[in-house]
Amino acid sequence: MGAALAMTAGAQTAPPRDPGFKAIVQVALVTRNIEASAQHWSALLGVEVPKIMTSRPGNEVHVIYQGKPSNARAKLAFLSAGQVQVELIQPLGGGSAWQQFLDEHGEGVHHIAFNVQNLAQAESEMKALGYDAIHSGRWDSDNGDYVYFDSTKALGLVVELLHGDPKK
Amino acid sequence: MGAALAMTAGAQTAPPRDPGFKAIVQVALVTRNIEASAQHWSALLGVEVPKIMTSRPGNEVHVIYQGKPSNARAKLAFLSAGQVQVELIQPLGGGSAWQQFLDEHGEGVHHIAFNVQNLAQAESEMKALGYDAIHSGRWDSDNGDYVYFDSTKALGLVVELLHGDPKK
Repeated sequence: MGAALAMTAGAQTAPPRDPGFKAIVQVALVTRNIEASAQHWSALLGVEVPKIMTSRPGNEVHVIYQGKPSNARAKLAFLSAGQVQVELIQPLGGGSAWQQFLDEHGEGVHHIAFNVQNLAQAESEMKALGYDAIHSGRWDSDNGDYVYFDSTKALGLVVELLHGDPKK
Repeated sequence: MGAALAMTAGAQTAPPRDPGFKAIVQVALVTRNIEASAQHWSALLGVEVPKIMTSRPGNEVHVIYQGKPSNARAKLAFLSAGQVQVELIQPLGGGSAWQQFLDEHGEGVHHIAFNVQNLAQAESEMKALGYDAIHSGRWDSDNGDYVYFDSTKALGLVVELLHGDPKK
């Protein structure tokens, strides 16, 4: 099995990837009760209970879900675990990849994220690998884009690309 | 909501944790077809297709599942993604936390892992947080222990503790 795979492996001939794909920077879970999840995760990691934020309404931060504008919101919390940030997400209604996951799978890991250097190029790379964008938006109206890809069937989870605005 | 949480946060008074809890070192997915998953993940990360290994029979590597010896095996593959290793697991029969996840949830993220310094102490810490061991074993008969904990309800995933044998 290993030998057959080695023969078909295309790693040597694959085009170069955005350097951001070298490191997973986020593991994100969808939860029904973010206050409880934040307590459990802070106790596990031995860090302070994180502040819980509410994202701005989707129409203010350009949320597109399945090709259409969505007013989705979510409660969010972030904890540090080394190179990786643990993100907790509780959907608050409106069409979103978060609510879709909760409906289809229940609570659990929704996505991992990569910090990419060139978002348009990295999106093309994801497209070339067969992954379509399913949900995108801005972290805030003032900074940063995120894009989720429909990669669950092939990879077992959603891939997110993150890209901060250039510093002014 | 944030203020109420801050008032109840016990982070300051919590006992010190094993330093291993500071960093997530592994994100592990259960798959039904590890050859296909290995191809998809190597293309995503831009790394070579990993070799696929088969774990030794559970009775040779001391697998205990739900309190009883199990002869569970799995196909395994590992890819590097910065500080984090992506582990792919295809259960090959026998009672295991991997097969249980596949039966209950289908494919997806099964666990994250921490490399702990003192396994017995870290297990006590997990117990104090309310998490029972559900599956444990050796990576190999010659090196290293792993323990999975029943943390899915509180944390949305299984937590694994890893501990290598002292160098001889």
